[in-house]
Amino acid sequence: MPTANFTDIVLSRMGADIDPRLREVMTSIISHVHAIVREVEPTQEEWFQAIMFLTRTGQLSDDVRQEFILLSDTMGVSMLVDAINNRKGQGGTESTVLGPFYAAGSPELPLGANIAREPGGQPCFLSGHVRAPDGSPIAGARLDVWHSNSHGFYNVQQLDTQPSGNLRGVFHTDADGRWWFRSIMPSSYPVPEDGTVGNLLRAMGRHAWRPAHVHFIISAPGFQSLTTHLFVNGDTYLDSDAVFGVKDSLIVDFVRHMDAREIAERGLSEPFYTAEYEFVLEPATVAASREAVAV
Amino acid sequence: MPTANFTDIVLSRMGADIDPRLREVMTSIISHVHAIVREVEPTQEEWFQAIMFLTRTGQLSDDVRQEFILLSDTMGVSMLVDAINNRKGQGGTESTVLGPFYAAGSPELPLGANIAREPGGQPCFLSGHVRAPDGSPIAGARLDVWHSNSHGFYNVQQLDTQPSGNLRGVFHTDADGRWWFRSIMPSSYPVPEDGTVGNLLRAMGRHAWRPAHVHFIISAPGFQSLTTHLFVNGDTYLDSDAVFGVKDSLIVDFVRHMDAREIAERGLSEPFYTAEYEFVLEPATVAASREAVAV
Repeated sequence: MPTANFTDIVLSRMGADIDPRLREVMTSIISHVHAIVREVEPTQEEWFQAIMFLTRTGQLSDDVRQEFILLSDTMGVSMLVDAINNRKGQGGTESTVLGPFYAAGSPELPLGANIAREPGGQPCFLSGHVRAPDGSPIAGARLDVWHSNSHGFYNVQQLDTQPSGNLRGVFHTDADGRWWFRSIMPSSYPVPEDGTVGNLLRAMGRHAWRPAHVHFIISAPGFQSLTTHLFVNGDTYLDSDAVFGVKDSLIVDFVRHMDAREIAERGLSEPFYTAEYEFVLEPATVAASREAVAV
Repeated sequence: MPTANFTDIVLSRMGADIDPRLREVMTSIISHVHAIVREVEPTQEEWFQAIMFLTRTGQLSDDVRQEFILLSDTMGVSMLVDAINNRKGQGGTESTVLGPFYAAGSPELPLGANIAREPGGQPCFLSGHVRAPDGSPIAGARLDVWHSNSHGFYNVQQLDTQPSGNLRGVFHTDADGRWWFRSIMPSSYPVPEDGTVGNLLRAMGRHAWRPAHVHFIISAPGFQSLTTHLFVNGDTYLDSDAVFGVKDSLIVDFVRHMDAREIAERGLSEPFYTAEYEFVLEPATVAASREAVAV
């Protein structure tokens, strides 16, 4: 009969000469999965439900959908992995999840360009600096930017209906480390709810919504790459992001401007928003210690 | 930043009115998966490898193959679930895994029938009793039997080449609780090695073999159903069954008979084997206490 010793028997089957990292990882996984079974004491039917949940989660995944990443995101696992790999020791801007809608190859654009290539949405001007921890500007830093449209969909989700490159762009800071571009306000949106993860979230009494945000990957020679979001202050879902990606330091005021003269000066005929953020990159030469921040 | 408290934040998102069992199960799963991440500290690349391992494991599964059950079996999870659901308080025969090759609808056969429907294999005669814990025979107990052929394959794996119903049968004990039938010797075989689980076993320095065995599901009115194997004593893989299914009490001597007169009496022209086993079913009215045996 499997007793407490049974887990040791399973672990002891690993060969003597295997990769030590695999041994470490599989020892942790097997031990904790056995602990779940001992705690939960699943019936045979519950065990089979779990088998079928995992099976369908794999089968739902394809080139444009990754249901296991969504499961990892919604159970807080992705943010934990992010935190472990992005401990900040020197005041660098905090990171958050990459998310499933990043695509390489966004258009390289001049500073000030408008990344909104379809009608609709409220105009928004974003700007700021990229700096080193000592405050010195980083010239030529690369910002890869993407966000959802006013209906909550990313370009890669609607390749048939959104214009090519809509709401995506790559910018480089000027000699003073400054960046600026035009877009529209991002909107909150639910993560895909029609699969196994959506069913699980409903059963757990949770919603699937993410607060409105703009994605950034910022990189510069000699500095650690930063993957993060800027979140829109005041959004309904800031306290209940379905993927736990919000950090207070990443919440930004998107200021609404309704003055007629200001609107005219921007060449617009409707109110617009502005948002500013000072990004800080940590030096690549001093990788953040794994012990620097308890996770 | 996710600290120790981060797991509590994720757990606290569950609604107040959800199914209490789901809350219990998800609390255990989320807590332990977070613990794995904190222990292992996966890189982003390792995390993505895990995502893709799970995805491909789901995608390999279909009507005739279940790679997640194979993963559960080879990591000892299935045997742990079996042990939890089959604690024996009164001396009943021990259970083991069902395995992936069971199929309902095997032919009902008279006692003594031969379930081997193709040439090849060494003749084998199996017999015994089905009894209650007090030793009294159970008449009319149903035995659903199946095993691999001499090449290590089950009927359901080779529907195109093995005869219908080969090496499967349903028998009922006689008035004295006795059962007997003829077959061939089962053989050891590897679990499917060409998928994600096979890759993992190789990386862990483990083989994929199961020792030779005959499957039984035994049931009778008023008694708990028993799912188990009889293993062939002396098999190379008894101490290293890839799915951890072996229990000492289920290892049986398959006795080889080479005496010419015995062979002639059986109407054979070659040596044969015999094996006997006394199955004991526990009463259904006294379900084994969950506390009876520490798991």
